Amino acid sequence: LAANVSDNLVERVLARDFRAVARLITLIENDDPAAISCLRRLYPHSGRCLSVGITGAPGSGKSTLVEALAGYYRLQEKTVGIIAVDPSSPFTGGAILGDRIRMQARSTDPGVFIRSMANRGQLGGLARATNDVLLALDAAGFDIVLIETVGVGQDEVEIARTAAVTLVLVVPGMGDDIQAMKAGVMEIGDIFVINKADRPGVDKVESELEAYLALNHRPDRWRAPVVRTVASSGEGVEECARAIAEYEAFLRQLPPHDDRKLQIARDRLLELTQMQLLRQLLAASGAAGAIDELAAKVAGRELDPFSAAEQLVQLACGSGKTVKE
Amino acid sequence: LAANVSDNLVERVLARDFRAVARLITLIENDDPAAISCLRRLYPHSGRCLSVGITGAPGSGKSTLVEALAGYYRLQEKTVGIIAVDPSSPFTGGAILGDRIRMQARSTDPGVFIRSMANRGQLGGLARATNDVLLALDAAGFDIVLIETVGVGQDEVEIARTAAVTLVLVVPGMGDDIQAMKAGVMEIGDIFVINKADRPGVDKVESELEAYLALNHRPDRWRAPVVRTVASSGEGVEECARAIAEYEAFLRQLPPHDDRKLQIARDRLLELTQMQLLRQLLAASGAAGAIDELAAKVAGRELDPFSAAEQLVQLACGSGKTVKE
Repeated sequence: LAANVSDNLVERVLARDFRAVARLITLIENDDPAAISCLRRLYPHSGRCLSVGITGAPGSGKSTLVEALAGYYRLQEKTVGIIAVDPSSPFTGGAILGDRIRMQARSTDPGVFIRSMANRGQLGGLARATNDVLLALDAAGFDIVLIETVGVGQDEVEIARTAAVTLVLVVPGMGDDIQAMKAGVMEIGDIFVINKADRPGVDKVESELEAYLALNHRPDRWRAPVVRTVASSGEGVEECARAIAEYEAFLRQLPPHDDRKLQIARDRLLELTQMQLLRQLLAASGAAGAIDELAAKVAGRELDPFSAAEQLVQLACGSGKTVKE
Repeated sequence: LAANVSDNLVERVLARDFRAVARLITLIENDDPAAISCLRRLYPHSGRCLSVGITGAPGSGKSTLVEALAGYYRLQEKTVGIIAVDPSSPFTGGAILGDRIRMQARSTDPGVFIRSMANRGQLGGLARATNDVLLALDAAGFDIVLIETVGVGQDEVEIARTAAVTLVLVVPGMGDDIQAMKAGVMEIGDIFVINKADRPGVDKVESELEAYLALNHRPDRWRAPVVRTVASSGEGVEECARAIAEYEAFLRQLPPHDDRKLQIARDRLLELTQMQLLRQLLAASGAAGAIDELAAKVAGRELDPFSAAEQLVQLACGSGKTVKE
C-alpha cells in the first residue's frame, strides 16, 4: 500500500467511513504491514470507547444478547461496533435464518458496524487481530464495541479478556457446567449474566453462581454482579447495561499502573512483538526458500523441527546472537 | 536442569517410565528450555505412533469415544497415550463423577498414559505444546496417541490438525449445527463419527453429512467416511478403528513431500521459530526491565503498543537489522 493510500485510509476510518473500516480490518486479518502503519496513526485517536466482551457456551444466547445490547445503546444515541469471533455466531454466516434477518435489519443502521472474524492469518494470533480491530473501531469513534466470543477455547478466553468489561453468560439447566466452566472462563467474568432466565432452574444456577463468587475473591476486590436477562424479549437488558456502566466506573478509578492494566498491556506487547519477529523473519532475504527447504527436511524426517527452527531464528536476526540452552 | 539430569530424563522417557513422561510434559507446559533439549534427543526415536485427534462440540461424547477407542486398542495389546485438551473433558477434572471413576480404572492400566492440558505458558501456543507432548509420547513408544479437543475454538481446531488422523464427532439432533460447524471444523475431518447413533435423527444428520461431503472434495482425493457409533456401549467402535487404519494406510502411501505433510511441517516450524524468537527476547539482557517499562508506558497510553513492540524486536535481535515497513 502506497503511503498516500494509507493516509487516505486513516482519514476515512477517522471519519467512520464503513467501507474504509472494513478495508482496514481486511488488512489486519491478512497481516498486511500497512495495517500496522495505519493503526499506529490511529492510536492517538483511540482510548475512548467502551469495549464489552460477551462469552459463554454455544446455545447460551450470546448473539441475542449482543443484539439486545446494541439496540439498547442505539436508543441512547450511541454508536456500536460488533466483532463476532464465534464460529457458531449467526453473524458469521452459520446462521439460523431468523437471526440473520434480524441482524440484517440492524446492519442497515448507520450507527452499527458488524464484522465477524474467524480466520487467523499466517502470523497467527486471533486475539492480537481482534485487539487491532478493536483499536480501529475505537479510533473510528464507535462509543461501544461488543465482542462476541464462544467461551470454550483458550484463545476465545483470551479474546474476551481483551475487552475492558467481560460478560460471562450462563443459562438455567447448565448447573453442572458451572463446575466445568471454572477452568478458565469463570475467572474472566466481570459480570455474570443468566440468560434465558424465564426457564426453570434459574434459582439453582443463580445460587451456584453466587456460591462460586462468594468463594473466589478477586485481587482487585470487584464483586462480580449476577444479572438475569431474557435477551430475546429485552428483559433485564437495561440492568445488564447498568452493571456494565458500574464496572466501567470501577475501572476508571483504578490507577493506570494497576496490576490488571499492566498485565493486559504486557500481553498485548508480547503478542505484537512475536508477530513482528515472525514478520521480520518472513521479510529476511532468502527466507521463503529457507522455510520451504527446512519444511521439506522436517517433513522427510531428515531434520528435527527444533534444529530447523533455530536456523530460522538466526536468519530472522541476521548475524545477531542466538540463545544458548 | 543439569545436562546429566536431562540425559537421565530422556533415558527414562524412552523406557516409558510414566513419571518421567509426566515430568517432561510439565517442562513442556512451563516452556522450560530443558524440554527442547530433551525433545531434540527424543526426536530420532519418534515417528512410529499413530496419532488420532478427536474433536466435536461439547456433549458430543468425545471423552466416551476416546475411552472406548483406548479400550479397543488395549485389547489389541497396543499401548495408548491420551492427551485431553478440552476444558470440559472429564479427564481435566470438570467431570461428572461416573466418567471420572471409569477413567480412573483405565488409569491404573500400565499400558495407558493420560494427561490433560489446559494452560498455556508465557510463550503461548497450546498447539505447539500439544505437538511437543505428542512427540514425547511417540518417542516413549506409545503405539496410539488419542488427542481430545473441543471443536469450537480456533486453537482447538489447530490442535486437532496436529494429529495424523482427525475424527470429527457429531450427534443426532445437531443438524443445524453442521451448517455452523462448517467454518473450520468440518474441513479438518478425515473421518466423521455420528456418536449417540441410537438417538432419533441419526438418518437426518447422516444425510446432511453426506451432502456436505459430496460437495466438498479434498485436494488429496480422500473421501471421508461417516461412521456411526454408540461409544457408551462400544457399538461401532471397531468400525471406527477400521476407518482410522484405512486413513492411516492412505497417508502412508503419500509421498513425504505431499502438500499436506509439507504444510504441517511448515506450520510446526514457524510455531517453534516464533517461540524461540520470544524466548531469545526474554533471555536478552535487560529484557525483563525493558518489558516492564514499555508495558507501563503502553498501559499509561504514553506510547503506542506497535512502537513499543518494535523496540523489543530490536532488543531480541541485538544489533541485527529490523524490518522497515
